[in-house]
Amino acid sequence: MLTLYDDPISGNGYKARLILRLTGQAFRVVALDIMKSQTRTPEFLAINPNGKIPALVFEDGRALSESNAILFHFAEGTDYLPADPFARAQVMQWMFWEQYNHEPNIATSRFLIQHRELTDEVKATLEAKKAPGEAALGLMESRLASADFLVDSGFSIADISLYAYTHVAEEGGFSLEPYPAIRAWIKRVEFVPGFMAMGMA
Amino acid sequence: MLTLYDDPISGNGYKARLILRLTGQAFRVVALDIMKSQTRTPEFLAINPNGKIPALVFEDGRALSESNAILFHFAEGTDYLPADPFARAQVMQWMFWEQYNHEPNIATSRFLIQHRELTDEVKATLEAKKAPGEAALGLMESRLASADFLVDSGFSIADISLYAYTHVAEEGGFSLEPYPAIRAWIKRVEFVPGFMAMGMA
Repeated sequence: MLTLYDDPISGNGYKARLILRLTGQAFRVVALDIMKSQTRTPEFLAINPNGKIPALVFEDGRALSESNAILFHFAEGTDYLPADPFARAQVMQWMFWEQYNHEPNIATSRFLIQHRELTDEVKATLEAKKAPGEAALGLMESRLASADFLVDSGFSIADISLYAYTHVAEEGGFSLEPYPAIRAWIKRVEFVPGFMAMGMA
Repeated sequence: MLTLYDDPISGNGYKARLILRLTGQAFRVVALDIMKSQTRTPEFLAINPNGKIPALVFEDGRALSESNAILFHFAEGTDYLPADPFARAQVMQWMFWEQYNHEPNIATSRFLIQHRELTDEVKATLEAKKAPGEAALGLMESRLASADFLVDSGFSIADISLYAYTHVAEEGGFSLEPYPAIRAWIKRVEFVPGFMAMGMA
């Protein structure tokens, strides 16, 4: 059976849980507490030298980390990662964009607000993430104003990757009020068969 | 013929040029000057709404951006992206890690040093990127101390993705002196058949 090392507060962990559920994998969860540095123990660093959840361990002991790589691995051969070469490349385009332009602004702001003391330094960091975070949401809005999902082929792991932190963007200080197309897309994702909300395991 | 929108100063553009050369694609380059905001014109934003090079336009007008998505697209079906499912997932793991842990520290430091005035604010940003940049190099060093390439299957787009800014890390203020395994890997990458150096088109 697969073992997922995860922390319930993590949107990146949620991405992994969701694709495992959607593709019908049997897995058990080992809950680690990021806030107590449980991802920095020698035992966990042997699984993921980068010291981050989610990390997935296969029955034979091999380990895989990076939420988007886990999405990729389990979506292969399913409709969540289309077969058409250009559609696949577009899925990857959104997922790499997520890691560089979306996650460091929106997910990180949420983490700071929820788990750090709001010192002047943290406030300055949040302020610096405001414009690039809004730019990321603006880019999603323009795509979704004329499309149901991020890639024309339909609901894919690009949507899972970006849903994870977009639907809780307000917890990071980003109002979704100016983004009606994003709000409609969030509803569409939540009606995908087999969908499971972030709080669920 | 393919059209690559690129800027010679960009390591991300180099990733695209290198995979296009390695896989024998015919392409022309349109050189844009990032420093003159030529990636922010309405014409270019119609190609990549994210306003960044590299962006690739196919003969039928479809466009693809994100350097790692371009690597993925052209490597598919070649040895640069192995067929084994777990090896593929590991290639993706390194490439997503590159975008989140390596590029924002090492590539961004290089950009700031080469193209920005060293104000106190820029110096503080560089200082903040020091520890995570060294951590990224340290993680590569431990992998490469016992392996020829990042993934066991051999040279892949994970190596291209990480070579692009690692081999010029010193231009970003990161000495490679403490990383002998990285230095040996750089040489191995440069001996891969068909390799082309960053300054070349």
